[in-house]
Parts: sequence; structure tokens; C-alpha cells
Amino acid sequence: MSLREVAVIGTGITKFGELWEESLRGLGIKAGFQALSEANVGSEDIDAMYVGNLSAGMVLRQEHVGALIADYCGFAERHIPTTRVEAASASGGLAIREAYMAIAGGFYDIVVVGGAEKMTDATDIQAGSSVTSGADEEWEAFYGATFTALHAMCARGHIDEYGTTREQLSAVPAKNHTHAANNPLAQFPFPVKPEAVSGSGLVSSPLRMLDCAPSSDGAAALVLAVGDKARELCDNPVFITGSGQGSDTLALHDRPKLCRFPAIAHAAHAAYAQSGKSATDIQVAEVHDNFSISEIIALEELGFFGHGKGGPAGEQGQTTYGGQIVVNPSGGLKARGHAPGATGIAQAVEIVQQLQGRADKRQVEDVKVGLCENHGGTAATAVVHVMEVA
Amino acid sequence: MSLREVAVIGTGITKFGELWEESLRGLGIKAGFQALSEANVGSEDIDAMYVGNLSAGMVLRQEHVGALIADYCGFAERHIPTTRVEAASASGGLAIREAYMAIAGGFYDIVVVGGAEKMTDATDIQAGSSVTSGADEEWEAFYGATFTALHAMCARGHIDEYGTTREQLSAVPAKNHTHAANNPLAQFPFPVKPEAVSGSGLVSSPLRMLDCAPSSDGAAALVLAVGDKARELCDNPVFITGSGQGSDTLALHDRPKLCRFPAIAHAAHAAYAQSGKSATDIQVAEVHDNFSISEIIALEELGFFGHGKGGPAGEQGQTTYGGQIVVNPSGGLKARGHAPGATGIAQAVEIVQQLQGRADKRQVEDVKVGLCENHGGTAATAVVHVMEVA
Repeated sequence: MSLREVAVIGTGITKFGELWEESLRGLGIKAGFQALSEANVGSEDIDAMYVGNLSAGMVLRQEHVGALIADYCGFAERHIPTTRVEAASASGGLAIREAYMAIAGGFYDIVVVGGAEKMTDATDIQAGSSVTSGADEEWEAFYGATFTALHAMCARGHIDEYGTTREQLSAVPAKNHTHAANNPLAQFPFPVKPEAVSGSGLVSSPLRMLDCAPSSDGAAALVLAVGDKARELCDNPVFITGSGQGSDTLALHDRPKLCRFPAIAHAAHAAYAQSGKSATDIQVAEVHDNFSISEIIALEELGFFGHGKGGPAGEQGQTTYGGQIVVNPSGGLKARGHAPGATGIAQAVEIVQQLQGRADKRQVEDVKVGLCENHGGTAATAVVHVMEVA
Repeated sequence: MSLREVAVIGTGITKFGELWEESLRGLGIKAGFQALSEANVGSEDIDAMYVGNLSAGMVLRQEHVGALIADYCGFAERHIPTTRVEAASASGGLAIREAYMAIAGGFYDIVVVGGAEKMTDATDIQAGSSVTSGADEEWEAFYGATFTALHAMCARGHIDEYGTTREQLSAVPAKNHTHAANNPLAQFPFPVKPEAVSGSGLVSSPLRMLDCAPSSDGAAALVLAVGDKARELCDNPVFITGSGQGSDTLALHDRPKLCRFPAIAHAAHAAYAQSGKSATDIQVAEVHDNFSISEIIALEELGFFGHGKGGPAGEQGQTTYGGQIVVNPSGGLKARGHAPGATGIAQAVEIVQQLQGRADKRQVEDVKVGLCENHGGTAATAVVHVMEVA
């Protein structure tokens, strides 16, 4: 059977950062309303809502976040279906995929996808637990493995296998901070030099403080519509032409190689196959750089560069303006900020705005095909979307 | 566009109860393997997995439960998509619906749906918080409202509006315990007299201890397949012919009436419309009796009895063997047990086994059409499925 076309017709995103005066629901409403307004639709037009969130249960003692956000967006009166999905930091990307599938499959015509996270209301212990809750509690977190320590092992594996260098790692956050300097909604909208990354405090060898993305507050939202309605409501809808999802063992120690994230390759393969595009067609991408090593591995798994070539490519300027592909024009998780449930959706907001030519100073020239890659835990879940404009 | 047929071809369910020697992942594996074995499929046949879970983050510090359960079921090597959904106690029913939609829409052919919950590893405070996390934290739980207190207000509203009596409330758990006496996997497989319910300790007026379902450990799983594969793999597949979902305000105080759960009516309307069946066609149903009042309201919202008639119908024997419709032959949440993420799936396991004529001493005679109703919070999410055999 053939799937129906699905397009993004509206985007919403808040500032990311330590937003002490904002609540989870307040952030959700702000992004949701902005997306509705941009799409020029009202709550009476919405058939369903999908919400991505990781930490509200552990941090705020609030589960059932799908009903919560839909209620506060004014959808409760019409009793529309509201669904929360969770896959650690991939929760946002997964919410997009579930909404995409529901429209493509014929269940709904117009759906709001929202992601929100409020990390700064947590104590240090709560915040740490909520981040490691995406890893294996019984075999990793319980023994004291932090999320940074787990990724440090991946970095060590990559260094051992491919000779990846400190300078190559440092080039990733430096590039993303340079991009974020043009993003007024970024948490850290200022440049950081590679030497500053290399000289920042050691957290878990070889990862240093500026290799690590922050835990942020923030929200983002999309309005998705079936093809004909999208064309009717929007002058330049951005079509989701490929959607893929992959999984892996939750614990790192069960995998054959620490330097690979095969769930990303699996998701990318599916998204490329569906869209008929390949890695060489992608002009702009948002990828999941929760640590500098994660961006390098993601670039390789997505096929943008060969295995072991992700580090050198970044250092040589191939992942920024004027290079082979612009990666994380928003500033990525490192510099725009990382609000787990919102992150995957914030990535899509950036790619949509890039493809619609309204990314201001961050605009990549003449882009028609973009990609979002969002993963959770140490990539035990990965979600990839290919997006295109006519 | 037309949707593809979807059927259940395998079921798995564990004992429900205080399972001190079982872990969340152990329970998940047990139910999952049983469903695979019953369906006569191997892990190489599975295209995706959906998991329902409420409390693992708050109780076990373990989120990312989709990847966890899939990993421990042996699916990680093939990197299949794994998705956790959460809508408080409706998490299990919602996992079925998302899996159903993914197959009906054309994305996957064979999907495992699992639900697991481990409530007894919690401290009293954790367990209490994880239950009230399905209500509105800022406007209900924060002020001390327990989940029982919120349902007590619904009961009070129903008494005020319709004159529902103590005896009518007590008839619900008494009937469900009588049913559970024939279910060897039930947490409380023994009869309880209506007078014992009426004489049990007051928890939150008018609800007494035996009006309230327990917080249980347990797991359940289904294998779903697209129509042609279901017929090929299974002699008597049970088709999901209608699926509906509804939402409501998270907080009770935002609703016009305390004695109604309109999200259930919304979900039922959609499921009936899709299946071409009406309330009068349903011969056997599992409904969400987390409190005695919940079953009464659900019976009314599902259209089995008029508003205000649910209490009298139960008292008059219309909801048990020989009556108009057999409700909760498994014993329901009250007597089979209530393990939130597993509950909606356990309901489906019972209805499938009833429709296949293999429910042993619980068998309802000559049943062809059944229904499951699962809700979360004070019915801020409701999911209804209509199931049929040829």
C-alpha cells in the first residue's frame, strides 16, 4: 500500500537554557501556540497530539504529559487523542515519527507534535538520575557509570580504532558554538575556540566540560498535515519524505564495538530508502551532539563520511558553511541547548526553517534536502528523518 | 484510504501480584516470550515493538523501557524500532493502539506489544507519587489529593446526580472477585462478599478499601500481525476491528461534571464507528475498574447502560455470567490486579482468550465480539478496542 504524503506546516520553539521563570506546561503551551499560529490553524482543526518528554516523572512527579500539554493547549474540550512517547533523549524525534506514521497511515489529517523538558527544577541527584535513566540502570547507572563516562568509553573506542584526536573532538563544539552565535534562541550564543574546548576541565577522560551538552529547559513544536491539506494551508510546506527508527542494546557492554552506533545506521538506511535519497543528497543536517564524540559517530553512521573520517572532516571544515554539508546550523545540543523531549523537535524546526529559507544569519544557501538525527541513551534508540521542499 | 486488517495471533501474561522475586525486565521477557511462542514466531519475524509502562522512571530510575524490554527479548541485534508510550494507567492500551495503527497504516507486518510494571520495588512515597503522577501534579497532587481522593469525588458526584448506592458500589468488586476465583493468574483469586466491601475500612469517603484496586507487579504481551499473515500463522486470529482514543483535562476541577468520563465515550464512539458495531453487540468486556465507581462510569460511557443505570445493572447481575454482558471475567483491576503498563494488555489477553474459547472456567459462552476499555488518571486518556473472531 502507498503511504500518504506528510508535511510540516508550522513550527514553534522557545529559548533554550536555564529558564527559572518557566514551567513545563508553560513552555509546552508557548511552543504549541506558536506552531498553531504559524500554521494558521486553530485548535478545532487538530486531530491528535503527540508529545515527547523524558524527565517530568522523575523531576516533577508528573507523568501523563500528553494529556497535560494537550489540555493546556486547549485541546481537551474536543477530547482528541494525545500520546506521550519516551525514548530518553530521542523522545522528540520519536514523537515526530509516531505522528508522521499516524498521518501517513490514514488515521489523522492534522497533528501537533510537541516536546518540552524542564530539567532545572531538579536537584543534582534527580537531574543526574533522569539523564542516566536512558542507560541501563541495573548494569550501568547502578554501578556509578554517569552518562558522560559511558560516552567517554565510546570516545576511547573511537580513538583506539581510528586514531581520532583531541583536536578533532574539540572542532565539534567549536563549530557548533560558532553556528549558535547566529541563533538568538540558543542557550550559549557565542563562539568558543577549539583550544578552549581542549583546555576545559576533564569530566571523564577523554571528554572535557566543553565536549558535553548542557541539560536545558525548553520546548519545540510542529504542526504536521497530510499532503493536500498542507498545500492548501501553507505556501512552502516541508515534506517528510523519509522516516527511520533503530534500536540497540541498552547497555554498551553488550555491543561488539564501542566506536559504532548501529541504531543510527539502521534508522538512516530506512529513511534514505523511503525517500530515495542518499547521504550525498543531504545539504543540511541537525545531528545529536550530546557529546562531541556523538556528532562524529553520527556523521559516520549517517554515511556523510566514512568510518573514522568524521573527526578529520570536522577539523577540515567539511561540516560548516562552505563545506560538504552544514551540520547543526542551530548550534546543536551543545550550544543551542539540550532539552531531551524537545531536542528532536528543535532539530526539525531548524531544518524546516532552513529549507524554507528563513533561517536568517544561519541560512545555508540553496538547500532543498535536509536531515534530522536524534538518539537516546548511548544510541539504544535512533530516529532519522529526511525532509524536502519542492 | 483503507486500512489493513490487524489481528492478535499470540498472547502472554504473568501472574499479577506482589512478585518480590521478579524484576521489571524479567517480567517483560516472560510475557514477551510466551506471546512469541504462542504465535509460533521467532525474534527474526518481528518488525517492531511497542511497550507500555508508567512507573519505571520514578520507581526504578529506569526510563527508555522500550529499548530495555526489546533488548532483553533478543530484538536488539536486528535493531528493530522500539517505542515506549505512557499515559498513566492507560499506557498498555495505548501501546496496543500505536502498534495497531502502525500495522494498519502499512509500516510493519508483525509487532510485539508488551506492558510491564514493577510497583512493589517502590517506597510508599514513590508508589504514591507514581500513581498520582497520572493526575495534575501542580493543581491536584501537590495539594495532597491522592488518587483515591480524586475518585472519591467522582463517586460523590455520581451519588449526587443519580442516587447511586453503597450496595451498588459494593456489587462491583464482589462480582470481579467472584470472576477472579476462576483465574489462576489473578492477584486475589477468591470471592469477596458485597457486605465485606461495604464493611471494609474507609479510605476516602465514600470509597472503602475493597473499592480500590491494588498496585501490582505484572506483565502481559501480544503479537499483532497484518491480516494475511495472521490467517497464515494462526487458526483463529482475533481481529481488532475498532480502535478509539480520547482525552480530557488532566485535573478534575476543569470538567463540567464529576460523574462523567467523556474521554471514554469519545474513544468508544470512534471504536464503534470503525468496527460497525454498537454497544449492544458487545458480549464480553474488560473495563478499567481501578475503583468500583470507575467501572460503573465506564459501563455508562461505553453505552452498555444509560447514565445512572450502571450501578443498578451490576447489582441486578446484568454484568456477570447470564446477564446482559459479562464485564471483567478476568477479575478486572480489582481482583486480577493492576500493573499500570500491563493492565491494558492484560485486558486484551483476556478478551482474545475468551473469543478463542480457551478461557477455561471463566469462558463466556458463544462470544464473537468483545471490547477492552483502559483509562489513565481520572480518565484524562481513554483507549477502547473492539475485537472479533470470524
